Amino acid sequence: MIYLDHNATTPVLPEVVDAMMPFFREEWGNPSSSYRFGSRVKKAIETAREQVAELVGAHPLEIVFTSGGTESDNTALHAMLRADPAKRHIITSVVEHSAVLTFCRGLEKTGFRITCLPVDRDGLLTMSDLENAITPETAGVSLMWANNETGVLFPVEQIASLCCSRRILFHCDAVQAAGKIPIDLKNVPVDYLSLTGHKIGAPKGVGALLVRRKAPFSAFIQGGHQERGRRGGTESVPLVAGLGLAAEIARKKTAAFDGKVWPLRDALENGILTAIPHTELNGHSTLRLANTTNITFHGIESEALLLLLDQAGICASSGSACLADSPDPSHVVAAMKPGSAARQCVRFSLGTSTQKADIQKSLSELRAITRTLASHAG
Amino acid sequence: MIYLDHNATTPVLPEVVDAMMPFFREEWGNPSSSYRFGSRVKKAIETAREQVAELVGAHPLEIVFTSGGTESDNTALHAMLRADPAKRHIITSVVEHSAVLTFCRGLEKTGFRITCLPVDRDGLLTMSDLENAITPETAGVSLMWANNETGVLFPVEQIASLCCSRRILFHCDAVQAAGKIPIDLKNVPVDYLSLTGHKIGAPKGVGALLVRRKAPFSAFIQGGHQERGRRGGTESVPLVAGLGLAAEIARKKTAAFDGKVWPLRDALENGILTAIPHTELNGHSTLRLANTTNITFHGIESEALLLLLDQAGICASSGSACLADSPDPSHVVAAMKPGSAARQCVRFSLGTSTQKADIQKSLSELRAITRTLASHAG
Repeated sequence: MIYLDHNATTPVLPEVVDAMMPFFREEWGNPSSSYRFGSRVKKAIETAREQVAELVGAHPLEIVFTSGGTESDNTALHAMLRADPAKRHIITSVVEHSAVLTFCRGLEKTGFRITCLPVDRDGLLTMSDLENAITPETAGVSLMWANNETGVLFPVEQIASLCCSRRILFHCDAVQAAGKIPIDLKNVPVDYLSLTGHKIGAPKGVGALLVRRKAPFSAFIQGGHQERGRRGGTESVPLVAGLGLAAEIARKKTAAFDGKVWPLRDALENGILTAIPHTELNGHSTLRLANTTNITFHGIESEALLLLLDQAGICASSGSACLADSPDPSHVVAAMKPGSAARQCVRFSLGTSTQKADIQKSLSELRAITRTLASHAG
Repeated sequence: MIYLDHNATTPVLPEVVDAMMPFFREEWGNPSSSYRFGSRVKKAIETAREQVAELVGAHPLEIVFTSGGTESDNTALHAMLRADPAKRHIITSVVEHSAVLTFCRGLEKTGFRITCLPVDRDGLLTMSDLENAITPETAGVSLMWANNETGVLFPVEQIASLCCSRRILFHCDAVQAAGKIPIDLKNVPVDYLSLTGHKIGAPKGVGALLVRRKAPFSAFIQGGHQERGRRGGTESVPLVAGLGLAAEIARKKTAAFDGKVWPLRDALENGILTAIPHTELNGHSTLRLANTTNITFHGIESEALLLLLDQAGICASSGSACLADSPDPSHVVAAMKPGSAARQCVRFSLGTSTQKADIQKSLSELRAITRTLASHAG
């Protein structure tokens, strides 16, 4: 199998699996229990908190563990809106993940106003659009760091500075950015930042939300005193420990990520764009994650292309896995290129385990498959 | 170690750990992905859905996977209130888990009305109190099946029938009941039912909410199309598979649970009540889970007693682990016996792995420890 869908999910690192095992087999105590069998498990959570904090240059006490990116995003939006009930306006963008967009659509139904900023043909934001959207009713801004479908990067430092100067809360969905680009929040005034485990080698079902010490907060999942009252529910100790180790490994490897993945991604991208007719890159050529390429194959339905790739043992996708069963075209490519063939785009996302031979094989399969499909269409 | 705190969390069953491993090590695909490496993982989720449904006599499509009991409880309350925005009244009880009570207190701040039904000295509900609390504004009722601190059982069949006849939604928190008493919802008109993995031998971080096909529903965690749009976020496949197997094992063993655990619990309880002076049972003597006993040691602070038990290698608790760090006395015992010594009660909760020798050792340690503490107090 050639796996070119790392933005959907990554393999769980073997050392992460090993690190979780003791908490499944022996150390299964409840971390909230007062006896030592419980409290010693709590230490594993605090170690993971330090590891996750370090990945993004934050303080451990700013990290709240969640069940994943979607819960983190929902929690940040919830906290933002609870800060000042008079402020009922949120600014986001048309290319956000469904975890933000679906939640915002729900808010609209209950009387909140949502502004979805557009992006240009390259998937980039226009900063003046953001500035102009801010009103005295604006509670906050929620924008992603790296787009999951195209890899396009938003200027988070600039956005954070603007929001800070206008005294508006800023949530950044960094689910796809973490581990792929260096993130150091020491001097970036982000109020909330979402992370998830299963994009950085930890298992599915665990994530984190960074909540700045000065940012207002109100628990979304409400129950016991876990996470200092910021997230109810018994912590999934093994998964949290796994996330911690994965974050530590990701931090150490982020610098090397580009060097290893970028040339392979470029080889794949250039190979497709030069050898396969009627192909077009979606997303800015350089302001982008090193591992992602999103390409429109004009005249070819992505569903058919992906099916034949699957038969050839190659995993890729037409966009977000979270919406893979959707009959709708990609909302991201549709937003970038209105009226274009958003059902004809394919996302390839590489990982550190991707090999040169994978790219060569993928290119030759893609050439053959597209030729077959084009002749059928013709 | 003698572990008498199974209501806080249970050991993860070795076969459950084994069942999860393939999904950590090899089958780590995203279940929403369209290629076979993803879709074959999806099958594991559907198998687990059948297993969990069977534990409670429900249809698999009625099961929504969550991150645990707290999320399940929050989700049910959220769904209840979204069904008819004109109905802004919820009925619950003073002895519910913090996952229900904290969420309800949050609702109160935003203009909802909450009625917390009292319980009697035995921890029992008075059905006429429930009937009298219902008004035309009542959206729903949220009551637990088995109390986590005392094991006292509420008459869920009666409550469900009453709610059904009054056309009011009913959510039941069955987190502590599942696997300990048979649950068959085929003829019980419960609308929502909360379950969690880590009380039945699955790991922490996964749970389920039963949502009846005819019950109104609105996603709480909102994102992608996972769980048929009922719960956003990539499913934690390994944990879901583990929950499925644990549910199957629990279902097969529920009948045997009583037979094995009841005599040991009674031996412990009777041993304490007869041999240790100034002790008192909290909770009805028979309308109760077979594994739980909650006892007040008058004149002895539970914190000191638990510390010495811990030093003797015995794990017990003063109540809910979710509130273990709280300086407040148990809200459950305080509600049953107002003005009583709620800081002096200890919960012992047994499991199928509890042995006769554990009980004998615990009794002799308890006798010695209480004697020491009583002489200090005196």
